[in-house]
Amino acid sequence: MTLVVQKYGGSSLSNAYRIKHVAQRVVDVWKSGKQVVVVVSAMGDTTDNLIDLATEVSVEPEPRELDLLLSSGELVSCALLTMAIRSLGLDAVSLTGLQAGIHTDTSYGRARISRVDSARVSREISENKIVVVAGFQGVNQYFDVTTLGRGGSDTSAVALAVALNAERCEVYTDVEGIYTADPKIVKSAKKIDNITFEEMLELAAYGAKMHPRSIELAATNNMPIYVASSFNETPGTLIYGDITMMEHSVKVTGVAYDRNVAKITLRGVPDHPGIAANLFEPLASLGISVDTIVQNASIDGFADLSFTVIGSQLDEVVTQIESLKSDVGNVEIVTDRNLAKISIVGAGMLDSPGYASRMFRALADASINIEMITTSEIRITCIISEDSVSKAVNVLHQAFELEIP
Amino acid sequence: MTLVVQKYGGSSLSNAYRIKHVAQRVVDVWKSGKQVVVVVSAMGDTTDNLIDLATEVSVEPEPRELDLLLSSGELVSCALLTMAIRSLGLDAVSLTGLQAGIHTDTSYGRARISRVDSARVSREISENKIVVVAGFQGVNQYFDVTTLGRGGSDTSAVALAVALNAERCEVYTDVEGIYTADPKIVKSAKKIDNITFEEMLELAAYGAKMHPRSIELAATNNMPIYVASSFNETPGTLIYGDITMMEHSVKVTGVAYDRNVAKITLRGVPDHPGIAANLFEPLASLGISVDTIVQNASIDGFADLSFTVIGSQLDEVVTQIESLKSDVGNVEIVTDRNLAKISIVGAGMLDSPGYASRMFRALADASINIEMITTSEIRITCIISEDSVSKAVNVLHQAFELEIP
Repeated sequence: MTLVVQKYGGSSLSNAYRIKHVAQRVVDVWKSGKQVVVVVSAMGDTTDNLIDLATEVSVEPEPRELDLLLSSGELVSCALLTMAIRSLGLDAVSLTGLQAGIHTDTSYGRARISRVDSARVSREISENKIVVVAGFQGVNQYFDVTTLGRGGSDTSAVALAVALNAERCEVYTDVEGIYTADPKIVKSAKKIDNITFEEMLELAAYGAKMHPRSIELAATNNMPIYVASSFNETPGTLIYGDITMMEHSVKVTGVAYDRNVAKITLRGVPDHPGIAANLFEPLASLGISVDTIVQNASIDGFADLSFTVIGSQLDEVVTQIESLKSDVGNVEIVTDRNLAKISIVGAGMLDSPGYASRMFRALADASINIEMITTSEIRITCIISEDSVSKAVNVLHQAFELEIP
Repeated sequence: MTLVVQKYGGSSLSNAYRIKHVAQRVVDVWKSGKQVVVVVSAMGDTTDNLIDLATEVSVEPEPRELDLLLSSGELVSCALLTMAIRSLGLDAVSLTGLQAGIHTDTSYGRARISRVDSARVSREISENKIVVVAGFQGVNQYFDVTTLGRGGSDTSAVALAVALNAERCEVYTDVEGIYTADPKIVKSAKKIDNITFEEMLELAAYGAKMHPRSIELAATNNMPIYVASSFNETPGTLIYGDITMMEHSVKVTGVAYDRNVAKITLRGVPDHPGIAANLFEPLASLGISVDTIVQNASIDGFADLSFTVIGSQLDEVVTQIESLKSDVGNVEIVTDRNLAKISIVGAGMLDSPGYASRMFRALADASINIEMITTSEIRITCIISEDSVSKAVNVLHQAFELEIP
């Protein structure tokens, strides 16, 4: 008998009506002859409301306590969905992250799953029950509750699908799948039927909605993910790993962007070994992720060094660099906080030249200035002014003919 | 170093402001040189709201699922209070019922604590932490969450106090202690400074606010309970077990009542052995608690049998008796749903005659008719018309001079 793991997000479980709707969907799948394990997020805005409460009682809530607090949201949706399924006449059982055997490391707030002990889940399945698991949460070696970070229920679902050797992991949300670009910006954005894990990782990193680690985990274990809406029956997007199926007629799969980018330029950096390490090691130890880095040619032993960070971390980075002047010299710091990343993504670009130039030409024709450029094997990213994001996404969507089915 | 267990109810934790207030109280006790374990209920109306949600998704929510659902409320208050204490600069740690070692039987919704494994709590205390425990919940042999029933956090607190050999268990609520009568009805009701477990059990059973099992557990283990308000510093009530301290000048401790009483009279019951068993055994198996029972003298082999039940169960009881007519004969069923119990309670009445007659006289002087009478070692109860409750409580409060300090 085949088994599917289905994950439902908060918007799919926002009230009693929607929970009953999801219960009916699960029952329909079960009646079609499949075993079902369901992973749930917290209802609607529960997590945000709990975070608000935490910041009311504490300026800096302890991560361990925050995890216990937030984990309560998934217990509520988990118990309610189980009740709703049972009231449709099938046997169902709720399991917490602990009961479902989701073991993690001790990094509260962004724990990584270390192993899944699926004995209890398997036993409940063998007793013909629909198993409903609280997503987003696990338990560490101290028996303390941990959470996997925003969107972590996706990762709970994939981890369970892998552990249970499921046919596939289905992720249900309030959009109909993965799109060639943000539909809010590009009117002609179209749903992608099939996408590889590698492409999806890049799109997720640049603003799409899946938890990045869920894609990594699925890719590593070759577990297909099907993303679709719980609000209708429109076919969604299949994320898969078999690169040999990758015979796209269009090589670019989608356009991604990230508005929250700031650039820091250090002028007059002494050009000798160890300077970059002196600069970036302290930033890394503060948990600051430095992205695109560009260093100009050295003139008279001094160079200009530019790099981007997450916009909200800019002030912290500048403070840190000021305190490092004894190590890196009396550099001039220039910042620009109104930037964005725009990327074209596609495994099909791998061995095909000409994509970068086509991208640069399209942006130039639209009078959009490119500040910095980075590339990976399946992505080309330009740093541009934040004001131009909307125009740039549309221009690229058109240039790479993504609106054509 | 002495240890106190403090329990705070939902009204004491109804919002962020009140949680911070409780945090300050806990910190003050710790700074006075005591170790503190805090047991919390869910914030404000959380439990009622969760029950509403459950009944929206399911006509008859599964008790196991309901317990997981309701247990989430205490996790929220537990984590928030811990954060609030930590933000005042002390070390604190939250523990779920499971982590605190509260083991119960499998009776979901009304589980009984089977044992407390306090190893984790003790370890955290030894590391100089204030331990905050989610009340109302435990875990059964299947690692499933159970709840102890309405008010069960009182019992969690007493069980932990016993297991940790605490100096005493303090229960903080929105009233200032135990009163000689309901202050809403008797203006001159006064707070009782000291009361025995036995007296408290009778008062709790008749409408006061402590979880009855918490009193039983404290009585069995001779653990003093101090009940007071978290909203001010007014001294509360000490509930204690040492009967030798019982030298009250006034022998009646308080007046209790319960409005939710219905009486059933069966006329023409055949007066032969086994009839009572045929009648009450099926009711007991339905979980219906039959209270005061009175049987009249037999005339011509037939008797009248009256008994009281909880008002809301009356219809169910009548249906059941109708179905038993083949066993108990074709009796006539007369019901009265507008009754109440009124009781005077006092361990001091034990060996002193005259209390009952003084009670009956006081009620008669107020033209209040007595329908039925029962007594226990420390209580005399009359069944009266529900309309007369308010007058009766006041009359008895005055008759036994409870308003005099």
